[in-house]
Amino acid sequence: MVQATALPRNEAGIAAAIGILKQQFGDRLQTGEAIREQHGHTTTWITNQAPDAVVFPTSSAEVSEIVKCCAEYGVPVIPFGTGTSLEGHVNAPAGGICVDMMRMDQIMSVQPEDLTVVVQPGVTREQLNTHLRDQGLFFPIDPGANASLGGMTATRASGTNAVRYGTMKDNVLALEVVMADGEVIKTAQRAKKSSAGYDLTRLMIGSEGTLGLITEITLRLQGIPEAIRSARCSFRSVDEACRAVMMTIQYGIPVARMELLDEMSVKAANSYSNLSLPETPLLLLEFHGSDAGVLEQSEIFASIAEEFGGFDLEATSTAEERNKLWQARHDMYWASLQIRPGAKGISTDVCVPISRLAECVGAARDKAEDMGLLAPMVGHVGDGNFHALLLTDMESEEEKQKADAYIGWLNDMAIEMDGTCTGEHGIGQGKRPYLQKELGAATRYMAAIKAALDPENILNPGKILEM
Amino acid sequence: MVQATALPRNEAGIAAAIGILKQQFGDRLQTGEAIREQHGHTTTWITNQAPDAVVFPTSSAEVSEIVKCCAEYGVPVIPFGTGTSLEGHVNAPAGGICVDMMRMDQIMSVQPEDLTVVVQPGVTREQLNTHLRDQGLFFPIDPGANASLGGMTATRASGTNAVRYGTMKDNVLALEVVMADGEVIKTAQRAKKSSAGYDLTRLMIGSEGTLGLITEITLRLQGIPEAIRSARCSFRSVDEACRAVMMTIQYGIPVARMELLDEMSVKAANSYSNLSLPETPLLLLEFHGSDAGVLEQSEIFASIAEEFGGFDLEATSTAEERNKLWQARHDMYWASLQIRPGAKGISTDVCVPISRLAECVGAARDKAEDMGLLAPMVGHVGDGNFHALLLTDMESEEEKQKADAYIGWLNDMAIEMDGTCTGEHGIGQGKRPYLQKELGAATRYMAAIKAALDPENILNPGKILEM
Repeated sequence: MVQATALPRNEAGIAAAIGILKQQFGDRLQTGEAIREQHGHTTTWITNQAPDAVVFPTSSAEVSEIVKCCAEYGVPVIPFGTGTSLEGHVNAPAGGICVDMMRMDQIMSVQPEDLTVVVQPGVTREQLNTHLRDQGLFFPIDPGANASLGGMTATRASGTNAVRYGTMKDNVLALEVVMADGEVIKTAQRAKKSSAGYDLTRLMIGSEGTLGLITEITLRLQGIPEAIRSARCSFRSVDEACRAVMMTIQYGIPVARMELLDEMSVKAANSYSNLSLPETPLLLLEFHGSDAGVLEQSEIFASIAEEFGGFDLEATSTAEERNKLWQARHDMYWASLQIRPGAKGISTDVCVPISRLAECVGAARDKAEDMGLLAPMVGHVGDGNFHALLLTDMESEEEKQKADAYIGWLNDMAIEMDGTCTGEHGIGQGKRPYLQKELGAATRYMAAIKAALDPENILNPGKILEM
Repeated sequence: MVQATALPRNEAGIAAAIGILKQQFGDRLQTGEAIREQHGHTTTWITNQAPDAVVFPTSSAEVSEIVKCCAEYGVPVIPFGTGTSLEGHVNAPAGGICVDMMRMDQIMSVQPEDLTVVVQPGVTREQLNTHLRDQGLFFPIDPGANASLGGMTATRASGTNAVRYGTMKDNVLALEVVMADGEVIKTAQRAKKSSAGYDLTRLMIGSEGTLGLITEITLRLQGIPEAIRSARCSFRSVDEACRAVMMTIQYGIPVARMELLDEMSVKAANSYSNLSLPETPLLLLEFHGSDAGVLEQSEIFASIAEEFGGFDLEATSTAEERNKLWQARHDMYWASLQIRPGAKGISTDVCVPISRLAECVGAARDKAEDMGLLAPMVGHVGDGNFHALLLTDMESEEEKQKADAYIGWLNDMAIEMDGTCTGEHGIGQGKRPYLQKELGAATRYMAAIKAALDPENILNPGKILEM
């Protein structure tokens, strides 16, 4: 369990920067405790470290001015979206200025012929999809939370649709970024592909606010599929479910979503969402395509599932049934918490090669039982990514230590399997030691890049790297 | 026309490094003029700048030793694959050691369940696909040339299949890289997705040997589609062909390849490949999927094509017919050269948003005619990327100047259209001024990254950036 370490504070600089920015931003700079606490809040297992002030810019030019001021006084700058990140990304270990991007919420332009859109970072994915619906378009990345697109970019988010549509790295074409010296750059043009120099777009995606503040995002869009078909199928064991997943991927079925709920999660979903699913491991799938295409996909899946002992397979193309199932999946976090009222849910995020998935999930399940941990598991299993939600009594030191030990054990196992400690949540403060274990010497060069682009270490300090 | 500028040479360091490496590598280090000239050769419009020696390592450890030696003596290191790059990437403007990777040609391991393979950089894409065929797998990126996978990674290559499968940036999972100080790092694990720190994988892809030498590549594979169907369709104008392309993309048809040949290219193909295609603009398409799926895709395309005046549409699922058409496409470079025997072909590489493609190709065609340039055009039009091949008499200063002016004009227009001067060939030496025009201030931060990772500027100096 991480007690976030405090870093040295530049008191004089912070006071000076707040004074200057207050003059410029007036009521759009806040220093009240409640608002500061809220902006240090991270739905997380890491203790809160509030910033000294929260500022609400409405344009790239204003973000640039904020950063220039903070650069002059050596003050930390922490970008903030919806605050749904899980690894302490928005904590302020050295204090400083939180830049709340949520008033930069304009959809700047849509180019339907190019399947692209340009948005400000405070636009949320639901806001974007509502805006696009009439044009028959959608943005596919869906991390569950109604996160901001700036935050999703900064953390290289993905979610349930990634098995078909990829992650943020595959769906961002270009960025406008305010660099540590306040310069505003664009990382790429709007062309669909490019070989023009270093890929600053991808370098910024997943950099968690430590290399620059994202102020505009050009996204790739998809046409809303002609047909969508959902399926669910129960299995006798997680192992058999995972084997069915592996075969489905190998078969090349372009599944849009493929989610695993373990037995404990299914029980929780039944109770929370008033369903009557068989209380065994469950796969939820979604197929996108033409009418004939989705039928074909779901039939091929059915025959694969049967081979691995799948039962109670149900498939539907009606929106109502589909939404009910996926709502239950999206509500899993809340459903799981009800297993143990009062407990906090701490989420793991390992991702391993598909061939190791059954083994990894099985071992994770056994270990949790051995350690007496309540840990329902759900997974974006088409990508080899799953989350165990450790239901932990945060008042009990023993439980917190157990959870910590479990997380460490699981991350180490995933790394050993040529996987990663984080498929989609990012490093933040919480996973820094595991990044070191996972990539070793490579982190030295990450640190060199950080030092080159942010020599004074003012951009979201204390995240990703041990500096 | 670029007369490549020479950079200052470190004569003493070069002599010392060659002496030391010669002792270690013996016959695997060559200094003969022919072999040096060949390794400065770049199928290009830029004058040849040969390295001082060519060394042939067989392992990552040997590459690391070479780089350490060159780092000690401040000697340039230039990685070399098949030498098919087009923008002077392998030139040695400051002399130095060329590292020929073609003896590192081992396919290290295939993981069919994960659809991944680990290869050394000297493996060519045809070699890989021959190896994979029996397992029902293939690697989709196809730049035409039988390039090395290391070179394709280093230049962020793409080609005809990119419209469906993406470019190298989308198909590389992880890299092993020898850094400028000789350290060997891995950039990522083999998991399908990850949020673990800065995306060094994507930073290395397209860095053209200026940030590190790629010594191992983990690639994503695809299952060989159950069915492949090809189609060709003639149009009355490039404009109508491009509009059909735009509609096909918007419709969401998962076309695998979609290539445009303009009238001049079709004539050349007829003559060179003994075909009898209507001598008007032509689209070549390929659909991948199930039997029913490819039929459905090609039927939807047919109805779109008809709407835009397409005629003589022919579709086939037989391998022989298909190969004949695509062979003609792959032979276009040679076919085009026959339009004007003795001339050299200089390829442009702009890529624009699809909505601007018809306008861009049309203007490019008009301008070439106005300037009296022979310039057949082919394009990966599904991505908005096309190549005009300027057939130029390299003995004529006037012609070379005209070609130069045309290239400048075309790149400027593409940039103006929110496109790029290079969709897939890279920057190398030739496009450095255009990178500056395209991304402006961003290039300063590229330079900062270069300086951080290669402070002595020994890795492929004089490429990408004006340094």
